Amino acid sequence: MKIHRFFTPLIDKTAQITISDKELIHQMNNVLKLQNGEFVELFDGSGGAFLGEIKETSKKLVTLENRETRSTEDTRKEIFAYIPLLRRSNTELIVQKLTELGIKNIIPIKTDRSVKTDVNLDRLKKISLEATEQSGQYFLTEISEPLKLKDALEKASGTDVFVMDMSNSSFRSVEKKYPLSFFVGPEGGWTDDERELFKEYNSTFVSLSDTVLRGETAAIVASYESLI
Amino acid sequence: MKIHRFFTPLIDKTAQITISDKELIHQMNNVLKLQNGEFVELFDGSGGAFLGEIKETSKKLVTLENRETRSTEDTRKEIFAYIPLLRRSNTELIVQKLTELGIKNIIPIKTDRSVKTDVNLDRLKKISLEATEQSGQYFLTEISEPLKLKDALEKASGTDVFVMDMSNSSFRSVEKKYPLSFFVGPEGGWTDDERELFKEYNSTFVSLSDTVLRGETAAIVASYESLI
Repeated sequence: MKIHRFFTPLIDKTAQITISDKELIHQMNNVLKLQNGEFVELFDGSGGAFLGEIKETSKKLVTLENRETRSTEDTRKEIFAYIPLLRRSNTELIVQKLTELGIKNIIPIKTDRSVKTDVNLDRLKKISLEATEQSGQYFLTEISEPLKLKDALEKASGTDVFVMDMSNSSFRSVEKKYPLSFFVGPEGGWTDDERELFKEYNSTFVSLSDTVLRGETAAIVASYESLI
Repeated sequence: MKIHRFFTPLIDKTAQITISDKELIHQMNNVLKLQNGEFVELFDGSGGAFLGEIKETSKKLVTLENRETRSTEDTRKEIFAYIPLLRRSNTELIVQKLTELGIKNIIPIKTDRSVKTDVNLDRLKKISLEATEQSGQYFLTEISEPLKLKDALEKASGTDVFVMDMSNSSFRSVEKKYPLSFFVGPEGGWTDDERELFKEYNSTFVSLSDTVLRGETAAIVASYESLI
């Protein structure tokens, strides 16, 4: 049976925990209609978790008894995914899918051909959190404010940097060492100026497919490839 | 400069072609606002194409002069992607992304835990066609009517069959030979009965990720992996 998982910012290692967060209570009581005696997993996003049995539910509180304290180490690879600012739904799709796959850091970038320059960071974090819950992970994906490409490349210094582009060498064929950063461009790709900038920062140009991929598709398969 | 591409079912290898399809004309005139003298590529979905210069546009017709006849061979790998019936937007996402990546055949399957049993095949074909146009490909992806799992496995006989599941061996690590079929399950995964059925058909169980992937994410990365 599938155990529902919920993120709660703080977990006391006590025998009992009381949840008072309105949205979480709504989810447990009204959406999932969880009953007393059912088990759920609570996790704090930084490795702590416990398996709790629901003891009491009301409109304002849910009380759980701790049945098993769990703690896990963060074994995720040091990967930094620099993603294009696409129209909202596609940026959200990228954040959901990269989190699902287990990418540790997501940094949106402003590029010459970006159609957008800002993001709703709170909303992206909420989407990422839900993906963490559903994909069975214990650690949150860090999502940063958008950076200009030059600042992003400064941030990436000290890591192996790969640029998704048309190239004769495939991302598959290159050796991956961590920390690893990869950059995906917007619809319309990189400008010549941007390609020059990447070269100044000793980046490696690689391709993902013989076909022309949209930004969100490139971000998903580049993530998968960087994790393997 | 990006050249817009349009699918037209039949291309005469003549010096001039006249388009009378209403939707295509709307796209050319009103959406993209193409002007006389601009170039577009027309392709027929089975390898034939030509680069045309717009000579005349009206509300009912667009006339193009052939500047270069092109023809390509279908070099795509023989891959059959058996995908779960998810809620509509996710099935559409799968069809769009698999087409973009260059998957040749998509077959939706009805499984024990499918939340849906039918698809709007016309709509899926339209989405796939647009993805073919945008990803720069010359051949259409074939999309079949949904099959029951047993019928799907019969169809897959004679190909190497891989099942995406929790498994100790990764899809990455297995040797790929073509024709290749892969099966992706719905939310909630396969039932024990279905796993038994796969075994009867000598399928190989493989995994894609340490994390729990949604159906559409699994379909996308399995496609990428099967193509490489």
